[in-house]
Amino acid sequence: MNGAQSLLQTLVAAQVDVCFMNPGTSEMHFVAALDDVPAMRPVLVLFEGVATGAADGYARMTGRPACTLLHLGPGLANALSNVHNARRARAPMLNIIGDHATQHASFDAPLASDIAGLARPLCDWVRTSMRPENLASDVLDALRVARTPPGRISSLILPADASWGELSDAPQPTAAHAWPEPTRVEEPTLRSIAETLSRGEPSVLLLNGPALTERALRAAERIARKTGARLFSDTFVSRIPRGAGRPQLNRLAYFAEMAVQELTGTRNLLLFGTKAPVAFFAYPGKPSSLVPEGCIVKRCAAAEDDCEDALERLADQLGAPAGDPVLAPLNRPALPTGPLTSVSVGAAIGALMPEHAVVVDEGNTEGIFTFFHTINAPAHDWLQNMGGSIGMGLPVAVGAAVACPDRKVICLEGDGSALYTIQALWTMAREQLDVTSVIFANRSYRILNIELARVGAGEARPRAKDMLDLTRPNLDFVAMAQSMGVSASRPKDAEEFCRVFERAMKERGPHVIECCI
Amino acid sequence: MNGAQSLLQTLVAAQVDVCFMNPGTSEMHFVAALDDVPAMRPVLVLFEGVATGAADGYARMTGRPACTLLHLGPGLANALSNVHNARRARAPMLNIIGDHATQHASFDAPLASDIAGLARPLCDWVRTSMRPENLASDVLDALRVARTPPGRISSLILPADASWGELSDAPQPTAAHAWPEPTRVEEPTLRSIAETLSRGEPSVLLLNGPALTERALRAAERIARKTGARLFSDTFVSRIPRGAGRPQLNRLAYFAEMAVQELTGTRNLLLFGTKAPVAFFAYPGKPSSLVPEGCIVKRCAAAEDDCEDALERLADQLGAPAGDPVLAPLNRPALPTGPLTSVSVGAAIGALMPEHAVVVDEGNTEGIFTFFHTINAPAHDWLQNMGGSIGMGLPVAVGAAVACPDRKVICLEGDGSALYTIQALWTMAREQLDVTSVIFANRSYRILNIELARVGAGEARPRAKDMLDLTRPNLDFVAMAQSMGVSASRPKDAEEFCRVFERAMKERGPHVIECCI
Repeated sequence: MNGAQSLLQTLVAAQVDVCFMNPGTSEMHFVAALDDVPAMRPVLVLFEGVATGAADGYARMTGRPACTLLHLGPGLANALSNVHNARRARAPMLNIIGDHATQHASFDAPLASDIAGLARPLCDWVRTSMRPENLASDVLDALRVARTPPGRISSLILPADASWGELSDAPQPTAAHAWPEPTRVEEPTLRSIAETLSRGEPSVLLLNGPALTERALRAAERIARKTGARLFSDTFVSRIPRGAGRPQLNRLAYFAEMAVQELTGTRNLLLFGTKAPVAFFAYPGKPSSLVPEGCIVKRCAAAEDDCEDALERLADQLGAPAGDPVLAPLNRPALPTGPLTSVSVGAAIGALMPEHAVVVDEGNTEGIFTFFHTINAPAHDWLQNMGGSIGMGLPVAVGAAVACPDRKVICLEGDGSALYTIQALWTMAREQLDVTSVIFANRSYRILNIELARVGAGEARPRAKDMLDLTRPNLDFVAMAQSMGVSASRPKDAEEFCRVFERAMKERGPHVIECCI
Repeated sequence: MNGAQSLLQTLVAAQVDVCFMNPGTSEMHFVAALDDVPAMRPVLVLFEGVATGAADGYARMTGRPACTLLHLGPGLANALSNVHNARRARAPMLNIIGDHATQHASFDAPLASDIAGLARPLCDWVRTSMRPENLASDVLDALRVARTPPGRISSLILPADASWGELSDAPQPTAAHAWPEPTRVEEPTLRSIAETLSRGEPSVLLLNGPALTERALRAAERIARKTGARLFSDTFVSRIPRGAGRPQLNRLAYFAEMAVQELTGTRNLLLFGTKAPVAFFAYPGKPSSLVPEGCIVKRCAAAEDDCEDALERLADQLGAPAGDPVLAPLNRPALPTGPLTSVSVGAAIGALMPEHAVVVDEGNTEGIFTFFHTINAPAHDWLQNMGGSIGMGLPVAVGAAVACPDRKVICLEGDGSALYTIQALWTMAREQLDVTSVIFANRSYRILNIELARVGAGEARPRAKDMLDLTRPNLDFVAMAQSMGVSASRPKDAEEFCRVFERAMKERGPHVIECCI
């Protein structure tokens, strides 16, 4: 048995059975070992940012890490933008980065670089596994870190000779692993929060990450109903169950001044699975913190803590009844008619999306209307970009679809965002993933048109405007999708969008709908 | 005047007048300042790897750095793979990376990351410019490093408040700058090499980088003619003038065992602008060094040295006559007929390419035939991937075309390689760059099929083979190019390729030719 075979066996024994990969020469033994370890599902991608984005989506839907396979420093570099997003989403992930054989290191071959140095700024754990005998224990160390709640990024550097070297003894991978558990919030902390909430002051529970599971939301709803506290999620969430039958909560606005206004008058800001809200960007003369003056921030349960347990115990302490929860009713918007706009697209999606859909939202300026039009759609999960590096939507949709083959995945994408990792479409076709991608083609970096003024850079003059413009030439997402084997359509109006979208919801497999708005 | 305006003015005064950019909110003042500094040409790209690849191509053709504009850590991460390639090609480059305003740094906003930490492993110089007053001098420091011969990578981190802050006094950018000069090789070194060459032992001059200019090659040819030494370039070169009227030299083979064979019997390996040759990858039980036993390696002139001067002085010392050089004759291959193969495509390109073309070669396994079929084509320049991270070809072609608007750029691309930075096509359309891209669509990572056996991973079994296969589904490069506004064709045989390629050589503007071989 060689190192690569030992590594793959250890991975599948540790429940890592999907690998999003873009291999090169130094990873050939890992690739060859796939035929020896059939329990590992390899998913080929054409660009490394798709691999890490997919691992992010997979982890958000399963709670378990997938692994990626990347080719030396540059392969890792291509992957890092979506590592950043996954890390901000607190998704567990294991990157395996092939490197030159150790005896080759001193020769400074063309592809050589400081892989560990590249990984460290965005990964929680980095190690080079120097010998085939070490691979099994190294990868388990990597996974223990990755599976530290709610999730971390581990990167294992794999020299080619650690892959191809023979082990003297076969490793003994243990089938069961004890992964770290979330920390239990201590009783005095909860008592203090209960006391605060009992005072009847205007309070907000701000939730994200592990405080946004259905179980956590049900407990939060009890607390809100009992105390009058308002429930908010952060502007961007890793995953939230929403729609009919789920407790409803507010979403903090993206623009800082609006967010501050939403929180104005709040006396207690109680954090569960998140930190005090900050502006996405800085603006001249404006504060970075979104906490209004006079508001006291309490970190009740960190993302590392058992937020579900904390919220339930808090609800119990407050004597909040579990029965008769206030849940979102099923109330789909009417089927829209008339011109195709981001509003009519949002209404159509709300009207037609199936139950248990997974929505990956990188729709940016245009996707916001779909968010609001689906509040009372059938129960679904909503995934967002937590790190702000655009190009996560299509890859995360790949991973969500691999994780949940029985659920429809709907990906909302901006045209500008889609182009960073457009190669994801090919993997959707190859794996016949059940993803409908709605591209909002406003043919500009529209958010930047707004931000240009907001940062005080003045009225956009011609050359500046031209740098935010995507009309020379227009991108044709129908041809683009078809070029990668994905069927596509470009509806002319809301009625046609409804027909196309309804068909996409009924058929299985990938489809792209370009909405020129 | 704000910091961004000062920065742009300093750049153009220092001869940096092209910026390949993909800006975000934190770069909006830089973008706004474009209207104040019309001498700066902004070139918008849809993905950051295109920006750095284009800056690489621009630098190779002009000898001067372009700048890139990138959006925080993730924007830099997307750019790093082609930074790696440019650094290996010793191309000068200035990256400007926007960051959050300094007062925002402590808030750990979603896009925050350790930008300097990410830049350091692949850049030669990294600095954060903290105040608008510092920008002019910081960027001149950055450029002094970037322009240290033959070229280095500088990365300047630009917090948003350094951009938007007002300067108390306008800076005084000096129009003329003294950039570092290459080091003169000392006389004793040259005398010792001359002495070695005079002994009549089998010798090889191995050349790359600054030893591959036309002037350097003419001196090397004199030396070879006088002493019988053989001339080789490395397998991959940053840029080489070749074709009719240029001195000819051998190219070291890619596969290690072939390269060693080519050098077998060589007593003296004399290095100019390069280092001792090493295998691209390591293979079990095979040496990493390509230097045959008994061969003495002499580093005659480093890439940092004045290689042209060294070679000329060496030729003079040897008394090598300057007249009657042996130059490649013009001898185009015949127009091919019959099936479309990488051989017939190569012959057609050799038969039809115009004088002074710039060829960007990322054709990998299939492009090699074009290399040999163009040895006696009209004079042209040939650019290759020095860092081995695929996805450099189309971006480098963008930069070469921006640098040389009067020359036809021909980009040879593998289908797998093309997909890493396919967004470059859109910039070609937007800027109407005169680039003809020939895509060799063998529908596999073919090099890996070869490497899988070479690394001793055994016969490829079904699952391994599937990871190197690009047929499920086939990529359609005609539709892909058209989706980004580039006209495209897919010739069926050699005759049709000749017609399509000939037309592309006559018409200006971007065109893609997909060759299914």
